[in-house]
Amino acid sequence: TIERIGLTARWCDAAIFNGIVFLAGHVPEKTEGRPLAEQTEEVLALLEETLADAGSSKERILSVQIFLTDIGRIGEMNAVWTVGGEGHAPARATVEAKLASPGYGIEITAVAAKR
Amino acid sequence: TIERIGLTARWCDAAIFNGIVFLAGHVPEKTEGRPLAEQTEEVLALLEETLADAGSSKERILSVQIFLTDIGRIGEMNAVWTVGGEGHAPARATVEAKLASPGYGIEITAVAAKR
Amino acid sequence: TIERIGLTARWCDAAIFNGIVFLAGHVPEKTEGRPLAEQTEEVLALLEETLADAGSSKERILSVQIFLTDIGRIGEMNAVWTVGGEGHAPARATVEAKLASPGYGIEITAVAAKR
Repeated sequence: TIERIGLTARWCDAAIFNGIVFLAGHVPEKTEGRPLAEQTEEVLALLEETLADAGSSKERILSVQIFLTDIGRIGEMNAVWTVGGEGHAPARATVEAKLASPGYGIEITAVAAKR
Repeated sequence: TIERIGLTARWCDAAIFNGIVFLAGHVPEKTEGRPLAEQTEEVLALLEETLADAGSSKERILSVQIFLTDIGRIGEMNAVWTVGGEGHAPARATVEAKLASPGYGIEITAVAAKR
Repeated sequence: TIERIGLTARWCDAAIFNGIVFLAGHVPEKTEGRPLAEQTEEVLALLEETLADAGSSKERILSVQIFLTDIGRIGEMNAVWTVGGEGHAPARATVEAKLASPGYGIEITAVAAKR
């Protein structure tokens, strides 16, 4: 059985199967156009919400893929990157890509383990 | 055991393990250079073929990653996006990226649950 | 239980759950700035090391995502692509993206099956 969180007609926030949670690309809905640190903090908070709804948590993220519109600002993202303290850091990949809205500086997808 | 669909020397169309189907990036082979809506329709049809061969289906897609060569045309893709009607929409991420052939406007990868 | 390989404060090289190994984006640490073929060979060797540490191997890769800073050089990458000989080729997607260091020509993420 597949469980879907935050389901709309075109996508869901997360799909869960066999104990694994596949998350959608999360974007900075409220901090669009603001500095990258603020956008990163919002996206991480949104991911945490989806993870909680899916029966997982930040400590159980397996991998993340981070898209930055300006890879030169990766330091600003890293400065507020709080995923994985105390031995829980995920497999991570960060590359540059233009995103769906010109005001988005970051989009993050993730795969996590259900509790 | 790992099962592989559409295997060539360098890649396969899908690899199946533990009930999860990992699909390759599917591109518009026949509609290269045509309008994005047509290319999207072809790629979705190709994905459905691979899913059927893998013992899965469009309703069982967990996540998709969509690469568009021009993210400004995301509306044209959404207009023909038929994955996930009736409660089956996948976790989705869409970003811009230049693709392997200049005529490709879209490439889609996916992860799905086997039936 | 989640097992993590090559753990740092911000990321790990691989996270293992339910028999599936999720690998980080691997980059050419020593061959940065060198021809793409050399960089590709280093990244493939690094992936093999991580896979060995994770209890998997090159023959058990399910999917890879390849980011090239210049997709026009995909032929140089393919010329040294050795993953998947003898019936083990993974589901593959290759797109262009600017990477974290200007000298990186390639970054590869992968998902593999544990032995």
